[in-house]
Amino acid sequence: MSGPREPDAGRGGAGAAMHEWIARAYPICRSITGDGVRRTLELAREIVPLEVHEVPSGTAALDWTVPPEWNVREAWIAGPDGRRVVDLADHTLHLMGYSVPVRARMDRAELDAHLHSLPDQPELIPYRTSYYREAWGFCLPQRVREALPEGEYEAAIDSTLDPEGSLSYGELFLPPTTGAGAADPAAAREVLISCHVCHPSLANDNLSGLAVTLWLARALSAVERRLGWRFVWIPGTIGAIVWLARNRERAGRIAHGLVAANLGDPGRFHYKKSRRGDATIDRAVAHLLAGRAGETGVVEAPVIEDWVPYGYDERQYCSPGFDLPVGSLTRTPWGRYPEYHTSADDLSLVRPGALAGSLGLYLEVAALLEANRTYRNLSPYGEPQLGRRGLYAATGGGGEGRDRQLALLWVLNLADGEHDLLAIAERAGLPFARVEEAARDLIAAGLLEEVEPR
Amino acid sequence: MSGPREPDAGRGGAGAAMHEWIARAYPICRSITGDGVRRTLELAREIVPLEVHEVPSGTAALDWTVPPEWNVREAWIAGPDGRRVVDLADHTLHLMGYSVPVRARMDRAELDAHLHSLPDQPELIPYRTSYYREAWGFCLPQRVREALPEGEYEAAIDSTLDPEGSLSYGELFLPPTTGAGAADPAAAREVLISCHVCHPSLANDNLSGLAVTLWLARALSAVERRLGWRFVWIPGTIGAIVWLARNRERAGRIAHGLVAANLGDPGRFHYKKSRRGDATIDRAVAHLLAGRAGETGVVEAPVIEDWVPYGYDERQYCSPGFDLPVGSLTRTPWGRYPEYHTSADDLSLVRPGALAGSLGLYLEVAALLEANRTYRNLSPYGEPQLGRRGLYAATGGGGEGRDRQLALLWVLNLADGEHDLLAIAERAGLPFARVEEAARDLIAAGLLEEVEPR
Amino acid sequence: MSGPREPDAGRGGAGAAMHEWIARAYPICRSITGDGVRRTLELAREIVPLEVHEVPSGTAALDWTVPPEWNVREAWIAGPDGRRVVDLADHTLHLMGYSVPVRARMDRAELDAHLHSLPDQPELIPYRTSYYREAWGFCLPQRVREALPEGEYEAAIDSTLDPEGSLSYGELFLPPTTGAGAADPAAAREVLISCHVCHPSLANDNLSGLAVTLWLARALSAVERRLGWRFVWIPGTIGAIVWLARNRERAGRIAHGLVAANLGDPGRFHYKKSRRGDATIDRAVAHLLAGRAGETGVVEAPVIEDWVPYGYDERQYCSPGFDLPVGSLTRTPWGRYPEYHTSADDLSLVRPGALAGSLGLYLEVAALLEANRTYRNLSPYGEPQLGRRGLYAATGGGGEGRDRQLALLWVLNLADGEHDLLAIAERAGLPFARVEEAARDLIAAGLLEEVEPR
Repeated sequence: MSGPREPDAGRGGAGAAMHEWIARAYPICRSITGDGVRRTLELAREIVPLEVHEVPSGTAALDWTVPPEWNVREAWIAGPDGRRVVDLADHTLHLMGYSVPVRARMDRAELDAHLHSLPDQPELIPYRTSYYREAWGFCLPQRVREALPEGEYEAAIDSTLDPEGSLSYGELFLPPTTGAGAADPAAAREVLISCHVCHPSLANDNLSGLAVTLWLARALSAVERRLGWRFVWIPGTIGAIVWLARNRERAGRIAHGLVAANLGDPGRFHYKKSRRGDATIDRAVAHLLAGRAGETGVVEAPVIEDWVPYGYDERQYCSPGFDLPVGSLTRTPWGRYPEYHTSADDLSLVRPGALAGSLGLYLEVAALLEANRTYRNLSPYGEPQLGRRGLYAATGGGGEGRDRQLALLWVLNLADGEHDLLAIAERAGLPFARVEEAARDLIAAGLLEEVEPR
Repeated sequence: MSGPREPDAGRGGAGAAMHEWIARAYPICRSITGDGVRRTLELAREIVPLEVHEVPSGTAALDWTVPPEWNVREAWIAGPDGRRVVDLADHTLHLMGYSVPVRARMDRAELDAHLHSLPDQPELIPYRTSYYREAWGFCLPQRVREALPEGEYEAAIDSTLDPEGSLSYGELFLPPTTGAGAADPAAAREVLISCHVCHPSLANDNLSGLAVTLWLARALSAVERRLGWRFVWIPGTIGAIVWLARNRERAGRIAHGLVAANLGDPGRFHYKKSRRGDATIDRAVAHLLAGRAGETGVVEAPVIEDWVPYGYDERQYCSPGFDLPVGSLTRTPWGRYPEYHTSADDLSLVRPGALAGSLGLYLEVAALLEANRTYRNLSPYGEPQLGRRGLYAATGGGGEGRDRQLALLWVLNLADGEHDLLAIAERAGLPFARVEEAARDLIAAGLLEEVEPR
Repeated sequence: MSGPREPDAGRGGAGAAMHEWIARAYPICRSITGDGVRRTLELAREIVPLEVHEVPSGTAALDWTVPPEWNVREAWIAGPDGRRVVDLADHTLHLMGYSVPVRARMDRAELDAHLHSLPDQPELIPYRTSYYREAWGFCLPQRVREALPEGEYEAAIDSTLDPEGSLSYGELFLPPTTGAGAADPAAAREVLISCHVCHPSLANDNLSGLAVTLWLARALSAVERRLGWRFVWIPGTIGAIVWLARNRERAGRIAHGLVAANLGDPGRFHYKKSRRGDATIDRAVAHLLAGRAGETGVVEAPVIEDWVPYGYDERQYCSPGFDLPVGSLTRTPWGRYPEYHTSADDLSLVRPGALAGSLGLYLEVAALLEANRTYRNLSPYGEPQLGRRGLYAATGGGGEGRDRQLALLWVLNLADGEHDLLAIAERAGLPFARVEEAARDLIAAGLLEEVEPR
């Protein structure tokens, strides 16, 4: 599969296109259920033909229950003078997610118990939700909150919590096009790419992940695949829980997985390992990031972090009952950039170049996973004579072409049916791409056969 | 078992009490057999109801034989003028342990062959013994030795080496009070706490260990226990050999063990690992000491050292035939403080505060061993919904209580029947006590069940 | 086997003798086949009674075929004035190895396509071969090449490539003289010492290895051996391939092995691990070199390097089908000294002292491999009473002889049938020789029995 890297050529264009898509999805008022998610998935269908699933409220899912569907028409606070001091129409973050309906007059002190702001970031609106406890609230800048005069206020939230509603999520499966999986896609080993879709107007923490995974899916749909690629765009936590509950058997076929988020900020890449810590996906991303550490223009080394049971939906995929090989590949992780979960996580925080770079890395990971096979040297006793196969510099004693030859020798030496190409690249200290190239040359020379990985 | 920590409250008082007990035991002339040990064990019975065992001289024990019982009434050297220049009545270190009886006149040169002193520490009396080779000798300050005039001396040692005597040691077993072990104490998993009891007037190297282990035994006797706790107060080497010979089957039930010594000096803690190196006791003490390294007022980090087949009775417990999980937890180890095995190892070297701190650490180790169980998450597929169980901050997006939640999530994530709580604390980088607290909360919520450790 | 170290006594003499032997072998025009190898092996037979094997050209060997035998009578280039500007008679490096016969006139430009020189080392003749592609060429200093005038040249190479010839190599097997192997030498565990014999006038890269391995073989032939010692002096690559093809079953009995080369330069020692990385030979050489790092006069620490599938004939021995425990022990490795593969690798680069030091290290390795047995403590429950066996300082409390006692205790503690003496030395941090001495004392005391290693 040399294909996945091709979109890199148009990476600049892809970055701008992803940013434009994010700008269109940004104003939508999303939550873990409701029309906001549906409208977002509709926008996503412009990029790839994902399927939208609707799961009725009240459905049991593992230890959880799908909550009532939440929608809101309007929400505002009017001040003593009747003017609206906070209005959902201005910014989706102004309303606490899953606020119950309210229409009431109250004095400033009573109102204040329902307000959320950030004393340390007085200009920003925070992001708050209350999915599983009935409550209502408004979020606003600390500066605005402090300026609210005494007097009577009116709070209005025209929301619905519909027990007959449903939770929506998107899914796309790209079956294998070649190899054993192509004959029986239902039994294919799969790669899971998961992205949450439930945050309202937050550009990096949500929409950047959506854009990069959509463009990744589009790129992979156009190339040869030996693995099945399953994309899920789901509400955080409850969406992953629902998907796992509906796909318990399928989960056993997930060979690799990534949770995508925070892929548009200009920060360096961070990879958080799966619970297993040494899964192929862990080794693959670490290998590619290590190779980038020395690249020109990479001023800050990428960061590899150990598993912790906190974060995004890797929490669900890596719960001990499933223990899937799923890590999380982001730029700056959640909670570590000052704009996180505030109105400053906006369209200016995400950059076309950063989005394109993230897409490029995901494509590299995809190319590695597709190409990472296990081989057996068919001439394992002594070195095969590379010279008569045109694979060796003919005049001894010189030093040319040694790098390429070294890759050939490493593959021949370690292709014992135990080491996959990634393991060979790791031990040789060579880039995966060079090792893969050597393997292709040796296959062409009839010196390698593919074996089932152990 | 939250109980073992309670004595900490009175730690100041315990320190003073231990020091008083040491002061009473200090003048007794102890050796590996004889009335000195018996009188010391009698003092110990004021603290806990230990049982005294008498093993006849001549009894075969593994590769050894119990030696004749040694006692001494008086021992002195009289100078040319008839005055006593060295007298056992002044200090028990003046007589080489196990000296055979003698009553003889000799010149200064002949006498000198029986004298021991320390040229580099001319004011101190050294500690010498000759258990297994018949000899006699006196120990004295180099300064005194050098001042002995020429002339005729008389050496008198009124000692007995009784082949009909016996070797004495003390033992206390605290059976489990709860759990499976309570029903069948003889089959319970045991913790062995071993302390030598054979040194004469040496305060740190012997009596500090005696005091701390006696007070530990008293504290543990008052609390709930799932493990059996076996204390042995034994003569060094031959005592451990004898105990092992008489308890070969029991040895197989020892799940954890510590050899206690040098616990009253003001030095930092040192832990010497068992031969296995990765036994639970090794991990437990290392975890607790690592947690202390960052504490306020801890100016010198505790030291963890690898096994060496030299030291105290861990040599016997960790011999390859037994290979028990027994380490040694001390303050400054043997031979590394200048007062070691000299008359300067006296009542001023051991401090009430140091004794209390040592007791506190032993109690922490005990609490950890008792609480270190293995659990299985009963809701292992996805995260259980903590919110409806009151275990989760209800309003998303905020950051409060995250530490406590993190401990809950780590326990749920790693409670797969393979990790004990200590392993969870190690991987999470959290204090054991916090992990244990999280486990208790999850048990109360019906989310964990205990399993037999692998 | 205390014998192997004895030749150290005459090390100065051995260094001079090896250098003299190298000086005699230096002028011979060697290649992978032909009379040069035969004459060299004849010189080697003056040192040890090796057997010379002749393998016919055309013989299939693993993936390879033995090439035609190459010999050359004369080779030169005459300039426009008829004078010889390059002549094999002056230096064996002047002719590219395996040059096909030629007798032709040509202009300077046509000639130049057949010339090899080193622009960065303009005074030196490079070393070039073309074993498996028909070609001819001459090697000369860049300075000489640049001074060649325009005009007509004559190139003459009177060589033969005989398809009815053969490839020659030398082999010597020293069977075990004691132990189980002595009764059945054909089934004995063997040590393989391999050295290439195919380079022409290059002193360090070839002849130094030959000399040290010949002297090693002579030393080992004079002492007691429990292992079989197999020496092969072979043409590089094809020789190892041929030997492996003819000895596939024997290869399975190779327990340890070293490829010897570059042992006469004054550089520090380098050890390149086998493909396995943790074979006994890897641990043995690393242990001995680590011990040397602190020796007086060792200004540069020895270097331990990981396996790479490039280098000398370890490439063949460590191919995945064989995967033998064979490392490579050299001074400065190939390609890392400026004289490498040039006419500056001459008799002044190799030093008698360096050769003697290399022989000394190989003898130490041999002594370790011979002595590295696995024992079981026959008194494993508790410590055996060393005192009554005369193995313990009789008066307790003192500090003398502690090092020796520590070695005794380590051996007793770890002699559980799982640890060989090398593993004990590694864990104890003691020199192997001290551990071996302790084992001998314990055997004499009846406390150890040898067991078959796991």
